[in-house]
Order: sequence, then C-alpha cells, then structure tokens
Amino acid sequence: MSGSLLVDNVGELVTNVAGTGDGSPLGLRRDAAVLIEEGRVAWVGPARYAPAAGRRIDAEGGAVLPGFVDSHAHLVFAGDRATEFAARMAGQPYTGGGIRTTVGATRAASDGTLRATVRRLVGEAMRQGTTTIEIKSGYGLTVADEARSLRIAAEVTGETTFLGAHVVPAEYAGRPDDYVGLVCGPMLAAAAPYARWVDVFCERGAFDADHTRAILTVGQAAGLGVRLHANQLGPGPGVRLGVELGAASVDHCTHLSDADVEALAGSQTVATLLPGAEFSTRSPYPDARRLLDAGVTVALATDCNPGSSYTSSMPFCVALAVREMRMTPAEAVWAATAGGARALRRDDVGVLRPGARADLMILDAPSHLHLAYRPGVPLIRQVLHNGVPQCRS
Amino acid sequence: MSGSLLVDNVGELVTNVAGTGDGSPLGLRRDAAVLIEEGRVAWVGPARYAPAAGRRIDAEGGAVLPGFVDSHAHLVFAGDRATEFAARMAGQPYTGGGIRTTVGATRAASDGTLRATVRRLVGEAMRQGTTTIEIKSGYGLTVADEARSLRIAAEVTGETTFLGAHVVPAEYAGRPDDYVGLVCGPMLAAAAPYARWVDVFCERGAFDADHTRAILTVGQAAGLGVRLHANQLGPGPGVRLGVELGAASVDHCTHLSDADVEALAGSQTVATLLPGAEFSTRSPYPDARRLLDAGVTVALATDCNPGSSYTSSMPFCVALAVREMRMTPAEAVWAATAGGARALRRDDVGVLRPGARADLMILDAPSHLHLAYRPGVPLIRQVLHNGVPQCRS
Repeated sequence: MSGSLLVDNVGELVTNVAGTGDGSPLGLRRDAAVLIEEGRVAWVGPARYAPAAGRRIDAEGGAVLPGFVDSHAHLVFAGDRATEFAARMAGQPYTGGGIRTTVGATRAASDGTLRATVRRLVGEAMRQGTTTIEIKSGYGLTVADEARSLRIAAEVTGETTFLGAHVVPAEYAGRPDDYVGLVCGPMLAAAAPYARWVDVFCERGAFDADHTRAILTVGQAAGLGVRLHANQLGPGPGVRLGVELGAASVDHCTHLSDADVEALAGSQTVATLLPGAEFSTRSPYPDARRLLDAGVTVALATDCNPGSSYTSSMPFCVALAVREMRMTPAEAVWAATAGGARALRRDDVGVLRPGARADLMILDAPSHLHLAYRPGVPLIRQVLHNGVPQCRS
Repeated sequence: MSGSLLVDNVGELVTNVAGTGDGSPLGLRRDAAVLIEEGRVAWVGPARYAPAAGRRIDAEGGAVLPGFVDSHAHLVFAGDRATEFAARMAGQPYTGGGIRTTVGATRAASDGTLRATVRRLVGEAMRQGTTTIEIKSGYGLTVADEARSLRIAAEVTGETTFLGAHVVPAEYAGRPDDYVGLVCGPMLAAAAPYARWVDVFCERGAFDADHTRAILTVGQAAGLGVRLHANQLGPGPGVRLGVELGAASVDHCTHLSDADVEALAGSQTVATLLPGAEFSTRSPYPDARRLLDAGVTVALATDCNPGSSYTSSMPFCVALAVREMRMTPAEAVWAATAGGARALRRDDVGVLRPGARADLMILDAPSHLHLAYRPGVPLIRQVLHNGVPQCRS
C-alpha cells in the first residue's frame, strides 16, 4: 500500500473499456478513482469505494484519460525545413522530395545531435499527453545510418520501426532495384536488432507494390511486424497489400477506393489517419466517416517529422479530426488512445483497467470534449507515465 | 543599471519596426539583444554592443517576439457549451443563438466565479504569449450585469469593451427598440466608467444598421472608442458603417463585398480576422489575401468565448491564418502582434523598440516561422510582461 497512488476528484474518467453504457466508445465513468501500484493500474471504480493508498493526486475535477498513443512519428533527424514549409504555404506543392534534404542533414549529424532532438521531441510530446510513441528510421538510408537511427530511437521507446524504404536515396537514383536489394539484405540485418516493425513508403515516386511486398516480406521473415505508408498522395495498391500481409496498420489512407475500404473493414488492420500532414501540406483530409461507417478501426497519430507535419501534438490532431474529418470528439479521443494501441497491437496501453500500464493524463478541463472544443490550448495539466508523475507542463 | 535586464543569445528578433531590410513586415534582426529598464524596452541593437545590465535572460537561440496582442475576446462568462459544440460538429449550424445560454449562466454566477474564470483564461493566454488582451462584456445584458462584467474585466486589462448589444436578451424578444433604448441610456451610463470601447454585434438576428449606428454614436459621445462585429455570418452594412464612424477595428469580416474592401483600404480601420471562430463553427474562412492585397491593415485575434471559439491560443490562430487564409507566416505574426496593437490604437505594444512596453516572448524555436510550421505545439518558453518574467509554461 505504501507505494500505491490514488488519483481522485476526477471530473470524468475515460477508460476505453466498453460496457459503462454511456453510448460512446470511451467507457466514461463519473465519480471514479484510479489506484496505481507498481506502475500499473491496480483498481478502477467509484471514488467512494476507493482502497486506501500511500499517496494521492487530486485531479481537481479535471478529466482523466489514458495517455495518447502516437503510433506514427519520424523523430530521428537533423535540421529543419521551415523555409520549405513557408514556400509550400506560398503555393509550392508537396511531393515528398524534401525528404532528401533531411537525409543529408541526418547523415552529417553526430549521434549526440540526433539523440538530443529525439529526446527533446519525446519530452515535448509527453508534456502534451503522449505516453507511448512509435519512432521510425528513414532519414539515414545507409546501413550504418539506419542502424544508428534505430539504436537511438530504441533508447526511448520499444516501438521502433525500420523505414529504410522511405525514399530511394540520391546515390541510387535510377537504380531502385539495387536500393531495395540493400534494404532487404544488409540494411535489414543491421536494423532488425533495434526494430519491432518494418515499414515502407508505398507511393508513386517512392516504392511500388513489388518493391513494397519484397521488403515487407523479408522484414516479416526477420521477425518484424508490418506497417506501411499507403495511399497518401494518390490512389495505389498500398492499403490492399497491407491488409493482405496482415499489417498492424496502414497509415495516411487519404485516397481510398471502395475496394480499399472493404478490405480494411474485413481485416484486423487499423487505418491510421495523420491529419497534421494534410494541415501542413494544405491537402484534402482523409474521409474518416467513410471508414468509421464501414466498421474500420481508425487511429490518429501525428506523423511528426520536419517536412510534412512538424507537430508533436495529439490534442491538435484530435481537434483537426473533429473539425476536418467529421469524427465525433469521442471517436477522435478513442482513436488517439485505444486506436493507437490497436495500431501497435498493444493491449496494455490506451486503456485504463486493472493490469494496464499506468499511463494517464489529467486535463485542465472537465471533459474529453474540451480537447476539440478548446483547440490549440495546452490543456494537459499532468501526465503519469508508468505511474510516475512527470513534470507539470 | 541594477534594475536592468538584458535578453540575449536571441536566435531571431522580431521587432515589427520597419527598415531592417529583411523584406518582411517583421523588422527581423539577427545577433540582437534587448535591454529592459523599468518595464520598458530601453535599447535594441547588436548583441556585441549591448550595454551592461544587472540581470540577463539567455534566450538559448530561441526567437524573441513582441507579446501577442489579442484584440478580441469575450472572457466574462459562466458555464461552458461543450455539448453545443459537439452537436454542431455533428451537423447543427451555428446561429449565435447559444449566446443566450451563456447569458443565463453569467447572470446567475457570483462575482467570484466570474473573476476566477477571467483570471484563469488571462493566465492561460499569457502562458501562450498574450501580453495584451481586450475583454468584452456582453453576457450580462442588464444594467447591473454589464457594469459588473466590465468592472471585473477592468481588474485585469485596460482594454475593456462594452458589448451590451451582443444579442437582444430573451426578456426583450420582439422589442429590440426598447432594448436599444436601454443600451443607449442607463446601461451605457453604468458601463462607461469601466470601458474604453463600445462594440455592437451588427448581424442579421442581432442588431441592424440603424440600431448599430445609434449605439455606437452615443458610445462615442460618452468618450468610448468604436469597434464592431461585422459581416461574420453573411453580407451586411457593418463594415462600411464601422469605417464611416472611424472604428478602430471591424471584426470577423468573413463576407465582404468589393465596396467593403475598398472602404477599408481607404481608412484607418483595421480588419480583425478571427479564424478560431471559423474553425469551431466549421464555416468558410475570411479571405485575408484579398484584404492584404488591397492594402487593408489586418489583425488576428482569438474571439475567445465559450460558444463559437473557445481558444485562447494566438499561436493556433497564426497557424490557421497561414493554412486557411493564405497569409504568410510573417504576415500572420505581424497581424497577431502589431496588427492587434493597431486594432486597439496602441503604439506601445506589439513592437520592440525603445520606449515600448517590455512585453515579449521567447520561443522554444529559432524562428517566428515555427509558430505556423509547428501547429498545436506549445512553443512559448518564456513570457515577459512589463519587463517581468512570468512563470515558465
């Protein structure tokens, strides 16, 4: 008991456990409290029945939610592309070509520089409620640089993704087969020890269906789970290929055919939507309602990266999802927590029930609705990660 | 010298003083420092020539900007309208009718409750860089409730605005002339001692041109400056009326005719755009480019209120202005600082030059571009108000 911690005076508790009869996917509870022991949720129930605890956190009537699960982020990079962003806002289209700018800066950077950026961004995300974050490589694109990117990412998260197939680097221009051979051979071998997942940017101008299939298949054979970037800039084979290969998630999903939606609806593959990318590239948003109405599981993530979506803010993505993609606030909050957990095939995060990791946030607001109702406002008052209170933001 | 404070190690200094030859309206300086004495800017220049100072703040390479000037906010209210927001996002149109919900809650609230909300929101805005904020009445709509709203607002800002003509309250339904008589007579008399400005919601369903003119004219005669809500929900006479009466600002400007734009361009009246309202009511955004290209002075403000725009975040408004209204990052930052100052007819804020109030913010980013490039991310590392460092956010 002495090590236990009780969170009470909760305005609204989002559990993401169905069955509270609130009609939303959030499993809302009123007058609830959460007991934490040894970094895990030990008990959830009515405050008046709360067990005794060694310490107490008073939520002061604020809503308490599972921490955000950001299942798509590119944090291992150097440099920024603020001027490219400004030029794009003045009318230049986004083609993904700027990725090579970041590749050059990343290769030239020291381990210490890359590590500092990763840690700064993970800390920034944590202050905004993100307690689980996936981090991809993909700005190294050499055997050594992909391996070190993942090694640095693995210092801060277990959700590391090998994205050697982000773009074909300049030195392989016109020789994509050769580059795919490198990715499938020595690069995968060097990266796999640090990676949980393998990912490919399957898109015109990046990797086609044959290359994507080849890379994901050898990644799977090496023990990695599959996820991919699909159907972002135009229609394509990515989503159906992901479903066929049993991907945990296909990400972006901006340009979908009826067959794509049908394939997703009949699968265990999550559609991860990344509205920060559409915001920062001034592109049309994915049709979340179509996916939800078809029964597809939807996740929200930031796509945090220095080119197309340099936000680390899951609350911002929730607000965009409601404004621009016609998700309800409850659907958006679920997608940013439990949905992200599904996209990472995790059942210990994104949910507040006994046994789950004690990752949660306390809002400076009485309800989850405020994450959409109060866009841009830093509403995360406190974050607990593995049961440990982080610095108040 | 002992009371002086030097801000140095500045990545980029936004002065809003023209003539640095950077081609933007921001008067950017590199390698600059700012000396503060007795709450005012005492000196701005190259860091290597900085005078000695008693204390020092290291900006750590972050950009330094004038604090935001939020020239349009409705902070004196009680209750929230999160469920109305959620219903609107599910498809119900915004008509402004929900204002009456807040009027009921505000009238029923104690002074202490109203004061606590105002102070909470002003603090929240300050942590996001807002060092000057205008606060309107308009949820009291009785002589006593309008006067107390302004009295409470005046405790925290000099920029107080009498908005008795926000809507016709329910008890005057069908008798708008009678209500306008009340506003122009006893309500104005009770409010004027606490107000700097008079404002009217000139819109179909609120107040027509005759009523608006009557109220603004008597307000002017009582010594108040003129500003108004105009052309938000549809075309109307508001903008031209504002220009005719010498308004400091006409706010919203979503539906403008060529004649409206021409009138603004030939005037000293600022067009204040409030993209948070369009975001949270899912409405089309004003055409900022058309105004800027015509030579109109544009300001950005939050419209912070519990119905149509419950954001206190000027960085969010800057990001929206760039994404949705095709302002450049420099134009948006200028509009949120110097533009807001123009909209309040102030020359001591929104600018960093000797004699100006030492209101400034230090970003966790090297450039003003990041306010648009990194949407939703809390980038304000530190705020100085009257030269006094506020709590780090």
